[in-house]
Amino acid sequence: MKIVVQKFGGTSVATPEGRAKAVERIISAREQGFQPVVVVSAMGRKGEPYATDTLIDLVKNIHTDVAPREMDLLISCGEVISTVVMATALRNRGYRAVALTGAQAGIRTDGNHGNARIMEIDPEYINRHLAQDRIVIVAGFQGICEDGSVTTLGRGGSDTTATALGAALQAEYVEIYTDVDGVMTIDPRLVPDAAIMKDISYREICEMANQGAKVIHPRAVEAAMSGKIPIKIKNTFSDAEGTLIAEHVAERVITGLAHLSDITQVKVGPLDGGDVQMAKVKVLKTMAEARISIDMTGVAPNSIFFIIKGEDTGRAKAALQKAGYNTTVDPGCAKVSVIGAGMEGVPGVMADIMESLDKAGITVLQTSDSDITISFLIKESDLSKAIQILHDDIELGKI
Amino acid sequence: MKIVVQKFGGTSVATPEGRAKAVERIISAREQGFQPVVVVSAMGRKGEPYATDTLIDLVKNIHTDVAPREMDLLISCGEVISTVVMATALRNRGYRAVALTGAQAGIRTDGNHGNARIMEIDPEYINRHLAQDRIVIVAGFQGICEDGSVTTLGRGGSDTTATALGAALQAEYVEIYTDVDGVMTIDPRLVPDAAIMKDISYREICEMANQGAKVIHPRAVEAAMSGKIPIKIKNTFSDAEGTLIAEHVAERVITGLAHLSDITQVKVGPLDGGDVQMAKVKVLKTMAEARISIDMTGVAPNSIFFIIKGEDTGRAKAALQKAGYNTTVDPGCAKVSVIGAGMEGVPGVMADIMESLDKAGITVLQTSDSDITISFLIKESDLSKAIQILHDDIELGKI
Repeated sequence: MKIVVQKFGGTSVATPEGRAKAVERIISAREQGFQPVVVVSAMGRKGEPYATDTLIDLVKNIHTDVAPREMDLLISCGEVISTVVMATALRNRGYRAVALTGAQAGIRTDGNHGNARIMEIDPEYINRHLAQDRIVIVAGFQGICEDGSVTTLGRGGSDTTATALGAALQAEYVEIYTDVDGVMTIDPRLVPDAAIMKDISYREICEMANQGAKVIHPRAVEAAMSGKIPIKIKNTFSDAEGTLIAEHVAERVITGLAHLSDITQVKVGPLDGGDVQMAKVKVLKTMAEARISIDMTGVAPNSIFFIIKGEDTGRAKAALQKAGYNTTVDPGCAKVSVIGAGMEGVPGVMADIMESLDKAGITVLQTSDSDITISFLIKESDLSKAIQILHDDIELGKI
Repeated sequence: MKIVVQKFGGTSVATPEGRAKAVERIISAREQGFQPVVVVSAMGRKGEPYATDTLIDLVKNIHTDVAPREMDLLISCGEVISTVVMATALRNRGYRAVALTGAQAGIRTDGNHGNARIMEIDPEYINRHLAQDRIVIVAGFQGICEDGSVTTLGRGGSDTTATALGAALQAEYVEIYTDVDGVMTIDPRLVPDAAIMKDISYREICEMANQGAKVIHPRAVEAAMSGKIPIKIKNTFSDAEGTLIAEHVAERVITGLAHLSDITQVKVGPLDGGDVQMAKVKVLKTMAEARISIDMTGVAPNSIFFIIKGEDTGRAKAALQKAGYNTTVDPGCAKVSVIGAGMEGVPGVMADIMESLDKAGITVLQTSDSDITISFLIKESDLSKAIQILHDDIELGKI
């Protein structure tokens, strides 16, 4: 029997309309000859009683420093409640469904509460229910660690549950249902004619997410990639075809654009004295000791520069000044990234983009590039203009 | 180390005032040299989001016939949420607490969803946490059955969790905290000067509960009785001494009064024809086949009579008439029971009571007696008068 894993977010479980649509998708998969394994998130958004954030507030209002193990146990209830709601909605349509916690679905994680990683999935329990022709509903975002405690997977957790189950059950594919029509080439709030991608490779989508695009979490993609299980991003509420994420898709030179706002550029220097190279290392160590992530690190003969998240600006400046460095911070920057697996080995892409930005009077403060990504640091005030120019130039809207 | 099990109901967990009182009780036990193991119910009452009835409604609103296995999984979340709330309230006072589901506490049950029985408790998991000097908080009302599904224990479930844990952990005693000062000799809504019992034996309290008194569930008492663990019924919100339930207590002739309202008396007869004895058996079998519980069964030469719950009246009448019996039903009766382990072998108790009722003009429709209980069937309209007379006569208020 061919298995398909279908993941539904909170909005698809919380309302009668959402549930009706989700149930249609599940029944449709069965009618196409698949055995559906359904993964659900907690119901609704902050303010609704069974939403993750509401459960968090319930105890944060008692004591701000909740034990991570207990916090995981608490918020795991949100997804468990959703499994029973969805199983009951299916039963109401005459289908036999079984609701499973992450632990009952055989999902074993490490003990890193609040941000656990799936170590292995024992598919035996799910397979037993599938053998009895039941639709299996699994609580997303959670697992169990070696000492028997409930763990949660952190951000993107339910998507990761779905893709990891897809790999463990050797599913035909994994469907991630959201409330958008698929992955956009670019943030549609910045470029109104942003298009839905028909398909994208695993590594491109990971890079899009890392560079700030609000898409599926890289961890979820990695889990699918390991089993080469295709992922489809679809809309619960529309019949749009969605976006296919797979290993081999026709690679374009440029696939999408992503951006990160509220970035601060940090410049440290001049670094005087004897060993300037060692001084640069010490600057980096100062940041590491302050547990501040840095990116786009560059070096000049007697200075070093990098970017940090805006929220870390005060701490970074304090740490560097305490260590005695001349430090300049420039908040209000943005990082724009152009992603495309086809860029590898194609010369001149960065030159073309720099030229476009320059013509528009946009100053490029820093650049960086990796295999399939070119990134530019600009002033945040130039962001929407830059995005629109890049979009027009590389014709993303027409992919 | 000496262990004490402390059980707190929903009202003690749901409000800051209740939690503050509960936390005081827990800390106080520690300061007296005990290791507390705390059992909690779901928070609040119907209408509040994490109360058992609210969770039930959540899915009953989707489909009336919810699968029992899934219903158990859903409502088990109510107590799990309470464990984390209580653990956090203790952490807020600087104590290390760990929250455990029924499964994590080693509570194994049969697979009778909605009304499971505890088969065994593996104390290893709790003991491991106690060895690290943590206060252990256990979700009441739930366990896990052999196939790994979550089960719930039915009515009185959290009390049963507490007493069964008390027995498994060989606790010094089990404290059941409620919002009343202890077990009353009689329903205080009927007799304003009803007194709190100082102590009562296991079998007397079971009989009180069976005969309609709103006290601890007999299953919970049985679990404590098996390990000879004393139970203390106490008030979270007052410093009243409460009621001790134990094996050997000074036995009074009469300990308490209980009653069941909305009772129907059923008379079947005359039973004509050949084998009247066999006809009586067939009447009883008719009731059994209709799955109607009967009580106070009596026989006359050519008739048989018994009592049933008022809600079963229609079904009982229909089944008996369908089988061709002359049937008379008298709804609106009440069963009053006088309970006291000291009655055994004391002659004349029933005579004394009958006399008191007769003098007051109250007709006794039926009587029954067992080891420690004498019961009277009367018209429900005579109930409060009868209770008051019995209370005055036997001086329950002065025990």
